[in-house]
Amino acid sequence: MGDEALREAVWRANQAIVEAGLVTLSFGNASGVDRDRGVMLIKPSGVAYAELRPEDIVAVGLDDGRVVEGNLRPSSDTPTHLELYRAFGCGGIVHTHSETASAFAQARLPIRCMGTTHADHFRGDVPVTRDLTREEVEGEYERNTGLVIVERFREGGLSPEEVAAVLVANHGPFTWGKDAFEAVEHARVLEYVARMEATVRAIAPDAARPAAFLVDRHFLRKHGKAAYYGQR
Amino acid sequence: MGDEALREAVWRANQAIVEAGLVTLSFGNASGVDRDRGVMLIKPSGVAYAELRPEDIVAVGLDDGRVVEGNLRPSSDTPTHLELYRAFGCGGIVHTHSETASAFAQARLPIRCMGTTHADHFRGDVPVTRDLTREEVEGEYERNTGLVIVERFREGGLSPEEVAAVLVANHGPFTWGKDAFEAVEHARVLEYVARMEATVRAIAPDAARPAAFLVDRHFLRKHGKAAYYGQR
Amino acid sequence: MGDEALREAVWRANQAIVEAGLVTLSFGNASGVDRDRGVMLIKPSGVAYAELRPEDIVAVGLDDGRVVEGNLRPSSDTPTHLELYRAFGCGGIVHTHSETASAFAQARLPIRCMGTTHADHFRGDVPVTRDLTREEVEGEYERNTGLVIVERFREGGLSPEEVAAVLVANHGPFTWGKDAFEAVEHARVLEYVARMEATVRAIAPDAARPAAFLVDRHFLRKHGKAAYYGQR
Amino acid sequence: MGDEALREAVWRANQAIVEAGLVTLSFGNASGVDRDRGVMLIKPSGVAYAELRPEDIVAVGLDDGRVVEGNLRPSSDTPTHLELYRAFGCGGIVHTHSETASAFAQARLPIRCMGTTHADHFRGDVPVTRDLTREEVEGEYERNTGLVIVERFREGGLSPEEVAAVLVANHGPFTWGKDAFEAVEHARVLEYVARMEATVRAIAPDAARPAAFLVDRHFLRKHGKAAYYGQR
Repeated sequence: MGDEALREAVWRANQAIVEAGLVTLSFGNASGVDRDRGVMLIKPSGVAYAELRPEDIVAVGLDDGRVVEGNLRPSSDTPTHLELYRAFGCGGIVHTHSETASAFAQARLPIRCMGTTHADHFRGDVPVTRDLTREEVEGEYERNTGLVIVERFREGGLSPEEVAAVLVANHGPFTWGKDAFEAVEHARVLEYVARMEATVRAIAPDAARPAAFLVDRHFLRKHGKAAYYGQR
Repeated sequence: MGDEALREAVWRANQAIVEAGLVTLSFGNASGVDRDRGVMLIKPSGVAYAELRPEDIVAVGLDDGRVVEGNLRPSSDTPTHLELYRAFGCGGIVHTHSETASAFAQARLPIRCMGTTHADHFRGDVPVTRDLTREEVEGEYERNTGLVIVERFREGGLSPEEVAAVLVANHGPFTWGKDAFEAVEHARVLEYVARMEATVRAIAPDAARPAAFLVDRHFLRKHGKAAYYGQR
Repeated sequence: MGDEALREAVWRANQAIVEAGLVTLSFGNASGVDRDRGVMLIKPSGVAYAELRPEDIVAVGLDDGRVVEGNLRPSSDTPTHLELYRAFGCGGIVHTHSETASAFAQARLPIRCMGTTHADHFRGDVPVTRDLTREEVEGEYERNTGLVIVERFREGGLSPEEVAAVLVANHGPFTWGKDAFEAVEHARVLEYVARMEATVRAIAPDAARPAAFLVDRHFLRKHGKAAYYGQR
Repeated sequence: MGDEALREAVWRANQAIVEAGLVTLSFGNASGVDRDRGVMLIKPSGVAYAELRPEDIVAVGLDDGRVVEGNLRPSSDTPTHLELYRAFGCGGIVHTHSETASAFAQARLPIRCMGTTHADHFRGDVPVTRDLTREEVEGEYERNTGLVIVERFREGGLSPEEVAAVLVANHGPFTWGKDAFEAVEHARVLEYVARMEATVRAIAPDAARPAAFLVDRHFLRKHGKAAYYGQR
């Protein structure tokens, strides 16, 4: 994907999270990466989505976070995205404050994998990070947010390919994917399964997770070598 | 109904479940059957609804599930639909992951018949299937999904004409009807009564079902020989 | 109001309950009365709202319920409306299965007057009827529905002018007003305060009602001789 | 800002609360102040938003509340707005009966600061006023509503700049800001965080607030001298 195509894709992904109802006011941002050129493209900070143009998307160095293209300041969450790109092999990242996923983050509860809608996209629970310490918050806060996400996956033995989403405690969700569009799709599914899981917790507090073999069947129906869903 | 009319009807039913807000992303599918010709028409697998054209609808044999018309692969849920057509006398089937009905499936709770909105369409609770076994999931999973639905109705002594809906445990709802449109109507009503029942469970966990004679009155007001609702 | 104006008003009120999101499928109906001519105008039974034309509205006698104008059968709920017009001094009635108000009906819980939004329109709780007996359901069911509403107000010492709404147990709400438009407004407010009350019950099960003097202040700010809200 | 610009801004703010879904029927109002001229501009009482024109906005004296411009009666909540302008240094005020924030007011529960969405806008919980006494309700009710808000902030040691929102018990929210638009933004965020907090209370009744240093970091990221969010 050329520079202009990536810029357009990142701009469209930022529009898509608004159209999908995942954004209120100017919360949230989407980014994409060009690993060959070593740059990440991301939404500028605090710009209204309705006024956002492709040329407003800011390019920063994947290594040092310095702006390499664009006249605006990049999203304040830029250091979080950068840490995720460095640790995970993804091509796109989305951050939202989508209502129900963020409520789970505020409750510090994972979004459990309770059914096939979830398992079609995420192979298991979507985890919550630990709280950041005072030092982490008062220091390089946004970078440390990325680091606790990576820590959560490493210490939990989780695969970022199999569970491409996380809840930052008392903050909100980050999702990722092979490109910005897949990250948007994961953000949409995450909010959807969060709403279902909120209902499950309200109507059946003791409901148990389904068997792992059901989760595996659905995840593997859509992902990997043995996938048989869709037109191939 | 001729071939083209059935194809158009199945295509419209697939659009209708999107318009009714029962579908997110590409979850869900609608089908119809021509019992004289022995074919079922169904949505192709993993195709975006916005891009779906009538000619994309796939025809498969009712007996063997082989594609008899169409260039695309049929929905991965095709074997489930086929088992339901074989066991029940219906003309159309809809499967969705509609938010609240699927949450009940994830909670493994029936949608109780708590009032006249429900009783106007379903004569009693909408049941949940048992869990599939490991063998059933790892074997012919989609076909076995259909078989546990049929088992649930047979062993529960339920009439598929009186309760034209089911929740597959940890998955989501299937509904049916005399044609694909009635199956869509049942899918819409099911999501609606699921939302009401979720509220009832939240605000009055001990609420009791209404008397059977009230349910019967409403169901029979709209169905069968003594019906007196609508223009006749 | 002349005949054609009333017909138009009743037709518009039926459209308004759809536009306000109070109706799914063909549930619900609105009516208006001309007490001088002794006729009630009401939606025909089971006609899709999208296809409803002013000339489809049916006129029936206020005394005997016989059709005096129109080629279609009146709503099956006609006898309920007639009993309410006979007992209460209202000019319009609306029946819906609006989601949350109907959930309260299914839970057999009143919608408590918990705040000023409610008190601006209804001076106290919106009550629930008792269950109908088997004889009442298997006999003149729709007429008996009206009679238990009237009974609820008489035995509870409630004023239909002050509380222009009721929940029929395991069924749904009826609202009324000086004309069909005010009945629609009451139906909208009822669903709105039902949603708020469902949230209150979920987040604060022990919350107490506000003082009666607050309720009175708000109701009387908008109703009666001392009203001072709006342009007068 | 000149007279006409302020009138236009107040009119737009009244439209904005409708467009943001914070208003049903004619509940709610927005105002702005010109402290140099000593006038407040506010929506007229009980006028439908759809029919509201800029010239309908009423100007009243900040000191005495008398109408100085306009042919309509000002909102019945005018004395509440005036007390807030007198006590707080704000430039705009919004009052709504937005669904979930009002449910918290009806439950007499604060909207706790449970996460960064909230902390980006309000530095701590959004408080609830005490109940008004019979004398306060039966006397100058709307003025007394303003006075109990001011009392709540003074006695609670709260800063109206840091927490620019309040819930009036059994009534609904008031928000304010440097102008009417910021007051609208605060009303939108308040409803959004109220919905999230309702979900948190439903799914995790024992969830604890985040650490104060996280709240401070987010609030100060957007407010005050050290702010670094957005384009500066």
